[in-house]
Amino acid sequence: MRTRAERAGEPETTVGTRERIVRTASRLMQRQGYDGTGIKQISQEAAATLGSVYHFFPGGKQELAVEAIRHGDREFAELLTGMLASAEDPAEAIEAAAHTLAGQLRQSDWVDGCPVTATALGTAARAPDIQRAAAEAFARWRGLVEAKLRAAGFAEGDAGDLAHTVISALEGAELAAQVSRDETPLRLAGAHLAQLIRAVRNTSS
Amino acid sequence: MRTRAERAGEPETTVGTRERIVRTASRLMQRQGYDGTGIKQISQEAAATLGSVYHFFPGGKQELAVEAIRHGDREFAELLTGMLASAEDPAEAIEAAAHTLAGQLRQSDWVDGCPVTATALGTAARAPDIQRAAAEAFARWRGLVEAKLRAAGFAEGDAGDLAHTVISALEGAELAAQVSRDETPLRLAGAHLAQLIRAVRNTSS
Repeated sequence: MRTRAERAGEPETTVGTRERIVRTASRLMQRQGYDGTGIKQISQEAAATLGSVYHFFPGGKQELAVEAIRHGDREFAELLTGMLASAEDPAEAIEAAAHTLAGQLRQSDWVDGCPVTATALGTAARAPDIQRAAAEAFARWRGLVEAKLRAAGFAEGDAGDLAHTVISALEGAELAAQVSRDETPLRLAGAHLAQLIRAVRNTSS
Repeated sequence: MRTRAERAGEPETTVGTRERIVRTASRLMQRQGYDGTGIKQISQEAAATLGSVYHFFPGGKQELAVEAIRHGDREFAELLTGMLASAEDPAEAIEAAAHTLAGQLRQSDWVDGCPVTATALGTAARAPDIQRAAAEAFARWRGLVEAKLRAAGFAEGDAGDLAHTVISALEGAELAAQVSRDETPLRLAGAHLAQLIRAVRNTSS
């Protein structure tokens, strides 16, 4: 089981210790959540000493979780950028993105879900830094969808509003697919989001 | 901060020990996740001895988590049934439901999100019983939305497919609202789901 960056072909050995710790924390927290992941496990799986983990992250697990979310944020933003570029029409591109996500989730045996949610959920009340990092990730992903819609001629308000629902629906469908071990929720969300985007275009034109 | 059942006015004192343990576990896991919640905290907050927790749940925390999810499942099914009955038109009813969820989430200071996700997320790989209970909850909620759409004349296939996306989008929007401490994702999801339901109705008729 490898992270998306690893799957993308970057060999783990060329990566510095700090980055290796962040990637490991991100992958573990994505699968096990914040509370299910210990600093010790992170240090072991990153092949780093506990001392070096605390050297890079004096704030401990909470600081590491913020960096893990930022890593997941950048990683998914890259993936989303690529998926959105797959078709000129935003409705088509988003439907294709949902299918790609479904395939990746299945390939990971349903464990590699959203790289932000599992880390953030359940910690928001205790750790406002983690909650803010997660909010920033959602906002960045929305921004990418909004830009795609704007480029296709959608008005600013429509594009911003639709971007919210695209990210919400993909997020929820990913969760539902994970829990039911079934691609259906993501495939249907993709088809319905495409239909919604077309309906909004027809209403405004 | 109280659970939905408590807010509904049922005094905690009339409830038996087993039920009190389940409710407490459900509320704590909803907020802190499975790994963030210990048996000891559950026993303390339920005012039950550790002995009685293990008497009712010999399978320990994992068994308790399954019961906690089933409790959240029933509780949300009840809430959803009421919300769906608020208007005859399913598009209107679902938009109203999204607004109600947004208001409740804000009222809880953004901590009482989905009563199933935080418990299930991060445990699926380790605990198939928990994952199955969560899948059953999602399926039950979808069934309620599907029945509402069928009653309004939607064909079986359309109703079942839409129900998937309604639950996915509400789930994801609840998460996004929680993380951003802002009702906007839920309000927009409600408006867009209403628009989608109307678009599907117009396509099929």
